[in-house]
Amino acid sequence: MQNQAAILYGVRDVRVEETPMPEPGPREVLVEIASVGVCGSDMHYYEHGQIGPFVVRAPLILGHESSGVIAKLGTEVSKHSVGDRVTIEPGVPCGRCRECRSGRYNLCQDVRFFATPPIDGAFARYVTVHEDFAFRLPDGMSDDEGALIEPLSVGLWACRKANLQGGDRVLVTGAGPIGILAMQAALALGATEATITDVNPQRLEMARRLGATRALNVAGEPLAEAGLEIDALIECSGIPSAMADGIHALRPGGIAVAVGLDPSGEVSIPMATLQTKEITLSGVFRYANTYPGAIALAASGRVNLAGIVTGHYPLEQAEEALQAGRKDPASVKAMVRPGA
Amino acid sequence: MQNQAAILYGVRDVRVEETPMPEPGPREVLVEIASVGVCGSDMHYYEHGQIGPFVVRAPLILGHESSGVIAKLGTEVSKHSVGDRVTIEPGVPCGRCRECRSGRYNLCQDVRFFATPPIDGAFARYVTVHEDFAFRLPDGMSDDEGALIEPLSVGLWACRKANLQGGDRVLVTGAGPIGILAMQAALALGATEATITDVNPQRLEMARRLGATRALNVAGEPLAEAGLEIDALIECSGIPSAMADGIHALRPGGIAVAVGLDPSGEVSIPMATLQTKEITLSGVFRYANTYPGAIALAASGRVNLAGIVTGHYPLEQAEEALQAGRKDPASVKAMVRPGA
Amino acid sequence: MQNQAAILYGVRDVRVEETPMPEPGPREVLVEIASVGVCGSDMHYYEHGQIGPFVVRAPLILGHESSGVIAKLGTEVSKHSVGDRVTIEPGVPCGRCRECRSGRYNLCQDVRFFATPPIDGAFARYVTVHEDFAFRLPDGMSDDEGALIEPLSVGLWACRKANLQGGDRVLVTGAGPIGILAMQAALALGATEATITDVNPQRLEMARRLGATRALNVAGEPLAEAGLEIDALIECSGIPSAMADGIHALRPGGIAVAVGLDPSGEVSIPMATLQTKEITLSGVFRYANTYPGAIALAASGRVNLAGIVTGHYPLEQAEEALQAGRKDPASVKAMVRPGA
Amino acid sequence: MQNQAAILYGVRDVRVEETPMPEPGPREVLVEIASVGVCGSDMHYYEHGQIGPFVVRAPLILGHESSGVIAKLGTEVSKHSVGDRVTIEPGVPCGRCRECRSGRYNLCQDVRFFATPPIDGAFARYVTVHEDFAFRLPDGMSDDEGALIEPLSVGLWACRKANLQGGDRVLVTGAGPIGILAMQAALALGATEATITDVNPQRLEMARRLGATRALNVAGEPLAEAGLEIDALIECSGIPSAMADGIHALRPGGIAVAVGLDPSGEVSIPMATLQTKEITLSGVFRYANTYPGAIALAASGRVNLAGIVTGHYPLEQAEEALQAGRKDPASVKAMVRPGA
Repeated sequence: MQNQAAILYGVRDVRVEETPMPEPGPREVLVEIASVGVCGSDMHYYEHGQIGPFVVRAPLILGHESSGVIAKLGTEVSKHSVGDRVTIEPGVPCGRCRECRSGRYNLCQDVRFFATPPIDGAFARYVTVHEDFAFRLPDGMSDDEGALIEPLSVGLWACRKANLQGGDRVLVTGAGPIGILAMQAALALGATEATITDVNPQRLEMARRLGATRALNVAGEPLAEAGLEIDALIECSGIPSAMADGIHALRPGGIAVAVGLDPSGEVSIPMATLQTKEITLSGVFRYANTYPGAIALAASGRVNLAGIVTGHYPLEQAEEALQAGRKDPASVKAMVRPGA
Repeated sequence: MQNQAAILYGVRDVRVEETPMPEPGPREVLVEIASVGVCGSDMHYYEHGQIGPFVVRAPLILGHESSGVIAKLGTEVSKHSVGDRVTIEPGVPCGRCRECRSGRYNLCQDVRFFATPPIDGAFARYVTVHEDFAFRLPDGMSDDEGALIEPLSVGLWACRKANLQGGDRVLVTGAGPIGILAMQAALALGATEATITDVNPQRLEMARRLGATRALNVAGEPLAEAGLEIDALIECSGIPSAMADGIHALRPGGIAVAVGLDPSGEVSIPMATLQTKEITLSGVFRYANTYPGAIALAASGRVNLAGIVTGHYPLEQAEEALQAGRKDPASVKAMVRPGA
Repeated sequence: MQNQAAILYGVRDVRVEETPMPEPGPREVLVEIASVGVCGSDMHYYEHGQIGPFVVRAPLILGHESSGVIAKLGTEVSKHSVGDRVTIEPGVPCGRCRECRSGRYNLCQDVRFFATPPIDGAFARYVTVHEDFAFRLPDGMSDDEGALIEPLSVGLWACRKANLQGGDRVLVTGAGPIGILAMQAALALGATEATITDVNPQRLEMARRLGATRALNVAGEPLAEAGLEIDALIECSGIPSAMADGIHALRPGGIAVAVGLDPSGEVSIPMATLQTKEITLSGVFRYANTYPGAIALAASGRVNLAGIVTGHYPLEQAEEALQAGRKDPASVKAMVRPGA
Repeated sequence: MQNQAAILYGVRDVRVEETPMPEPGPREVLVEIASVGVCGSDMHYYEHGQIGPFVVRAPLILGHESSGVIAKLGTEVSKHSVGDRVTIEPGVPCGRCRECRSGRYNLCQDVRFFATPPIDGAFARYVTVHEDFAFRLPDGMSDDEGALIEPLSVGLWACRKANLQGGDRVLVTGAGPIGILAMQAALALGATEATITDVNPQRLEMARRLGATRALNVAGEPLAEAGLEIDALIECSGIPSAMADGIHALRPGGIAVAVGLDPSGEVSIPMATLQTKEITLSGVFRYANTYPGAIALAASGRVNLAGIVTGHYPLEQAEEALQAGRKDPASVKAMVRPGA
């Protein structure tokens, strides 16, 4: 049996090569990857070779939104069997530090996270992962849907920070994959008004199809003039004006959740408004304890994951998958199928 | 213009009589009642003349789940117009005490609550209410649905106490109107497993039709043997064994919400289990700040209110409406239509 | 009986004049004022005639930190007696709106707040207030201490937002009256490290005397170089760099509380840091439900209110009291004594 | 070098014997024990050989409240040095399961907890523990105090569940070591009224000396007649009537925390009161994430740990230490000193 992976050697330099077959450790499982989503972070590493402090120095395998079939068990594995279909939570924290012990394991400094240098990701035929970070897929959930539990986790985590109460009015700024999934998660958690904004009409149309009660093209209709009052803002664009306009639209006591990353790292916010309305602004980083809930939401049909997929690529074309987002404005989520 | 009401004169003694037309105070509105739901508390006053410390001493008008049309405005009303269709939140708190100031106005000692002695309720052609406790109904929401925002509020409030996170496994014990609406609220807030229990097969069938993922007749299949693990328990039956069995089914860190009232007021709970699993048990009393959310959930179709209605009665037959629940095991929610 | 007040007629124009004796409404009490603290907002109105959108158009009586003795009762007052010593919570909200009903009455749009145009304040011999907003002072609490329950409320409210857990490491930026009281409140609520920053050595010395475990003069020793790790930041200076430096010092999952107002209303924050550490930033505006707790903390000696008083002035010298803060760098809290 | 331990062979059968010297695993440290507190659970194992489902089948070393000096490091230890004085958190959870990942590692099913069969405890000269569960003691903190961080953790955890806000009125029922430490923790976290109850006058006197604002002997003065209104109840006696009386004393919206264990495991509670006042009842089991905070509170002098120590015993007299609580009504906390 041989492994194969799409390896990033440098900026815009991806090569598909044979690689050593990984051997699962005692508590690990070997997973034959079926589907991997291309994330904006993958595209960013491909184009720039780094994301902020994370620099690709050695060859790196990208991809962290993945599902597959268990092919082999480590010697002490007790939770899975060969043949189980699973989705992989791609970050394995240390389990011991202050953050891990407090339930915020997403902030563990010693986490090993797929496709974050120097840890390899899932654009490969086979990967290994700790058994506790592989989650069984329900029958009827497709491989693509299994892989997309990862970005749905981001959306669900953002919604949990938004503390929805039922009948909420939510604004999601940015209709990329995360924005559309956060919007769907908000609706699944009881929001009844879900406004989404973007400047890409095709993404707005997809959002509308997937449940947005209002899709606003802020190229033509500025958010500040939309007359919204919202209970929660989920900012997924990384554009500072979206955060500012969203904060202005919040009701007193509302919650803003920062998901999208502005590359500069510094954002000017309307602090006086945040203070006089007692807005709470929560930063979010990845997610914690979301996989079981995200799987259940998708399996019950409350969130449509397949609806954001806009292209499929075999492993050999991983580079085309990484380029799809920039080349085609209609592309939302490209999927790589290593087994195809 | 003349008013008319169904008045409880004593145990099992309801008379429909002409009554004085109420005059709205400065901040009040006069509402022509369209629909009123019969609640278990109405039935209890009718049959026993009291509920715990609340004793019917003078003639009392029952009914607190109501909707109607605004017929007249007090001199200082600014939020409504004549002709507006509204649902009435039936408890008007003092707005000043410690509980009111803390946002738990449902615990206000000076609340004036419909159909709770000595305050009259809504089995009448006309009632008055403070404008802030009348909520506009969306177009397309029926009078019955408007009235049933009240029991839905109880269910929504219970779900808020349960702190649902998306993909939750919820157990609702008791498939009466409150149980079925709490179950629907849980599903609307992201629960994906909703087990409901009762001993009445017709109620279980209704619950199944309205979304229960599992309906368990505990007459035949004891809850303790169902092998459930749940994230939240919403106890709506008032039967002590339901609370105990539900607590045993909770996962570590789970939440139990006590909605149903056991007449004895004393309930034995498995305290050692509650401690070793760090269960949180929350008592709930009525609701606070639920009307806008409940209206939005019903208007969006996430909760089916019409589906629990099992009979309609003109005001003249209010007594038959009060008896329906005891006479017909298929009765879940009888509605009185004063204008019919 | 005659009333007298210090009235702001315009920028730097305060005149002490005889004014009509106020008559308490049915639920109001008449309070003979004993002590009033001068707040930064009073100083700002005096010097600039406005604070943001609040413009002094008609003559205005300043002062909102006050205590006194009840001199007369409205016809329906039930909670107080003539002769009771009380502190006055200076904002009386409507009690009915969405914010009031939710327990965040500090955000009520219809609040009537002392010394905020067009509502008069307490630089007067007599004022009236709703009985529910007058709080009995314990024996042994001085008039000054009674008045300073108001700024302590701001500090306590900020600490509640900081969600202290016992043994916390807190950073308070800005050693003015609010900063020093917030620091003391943090210590009273279980913080064990309380670092405070300022550029005024006299204020830092006062903070040290009142419990700061570390007092940092950021004129000489930049916060960024202090090597702090903190659980909570309470930003009381209104200086943007303090907020930014404080956020950088927070541990993962920490909480930043924005109390000080930057006049520009826009503040640049290290958003990438806020996101990758999942910091929560809470804006605070005044306080809600703090008076009983603040009184108890001060009465028990856990907070030293008298220790921040740096001067006393009779009503006739109210203008001098308003100028003290600018003229004397050692001034922290000037008190006006209308009855002196 | 030789190890020695006090071993429980059966009911009332403790023998001090030489035992193998434990070898620290890669991430473990070897600790030379300086002080160990005798807990009620130790006394219960000694007298009954079991606590509920936990049965002593093989010889067991008791003791889980311990401090000492690091004598040897495992090969991969990075956080400690030989000679460090530490307190030991006695439960090492798996770090991977759902409970661990959610921050409630105290509920981990695979925890290895000192002196809980079949895991040995600290009545020994030397023990090993994972380096992350040894916490450095500040200079000036005694060995006894270091050991008593463990029961203080229970008290602190209970107080965290009580969600204190500053100026709280707290009732602690039961003035044993846990009750007295919970009371002190409540005061340290801002409670200003701390009523404690017991039937043992010596314990009440100790509580009074250590800060109780009221100490009530419920043998003579029933709690129900004390006219208390409280914000939080911390039930440490395990006596059902204390829980019931405490719930009756809670204000609307108050919190009850169940710490003491009633041996029957079933407790009758006033459910109607819990519901109509919307009381929250939280079960607590051990603690999570309390050690750093508890150490800081004790080091700062806010909690007096030494004040509850009533006796010292060398390891050879461990059995006498285990009997002290039953023999002497003035005994509160006996300490074993293995190195003495």
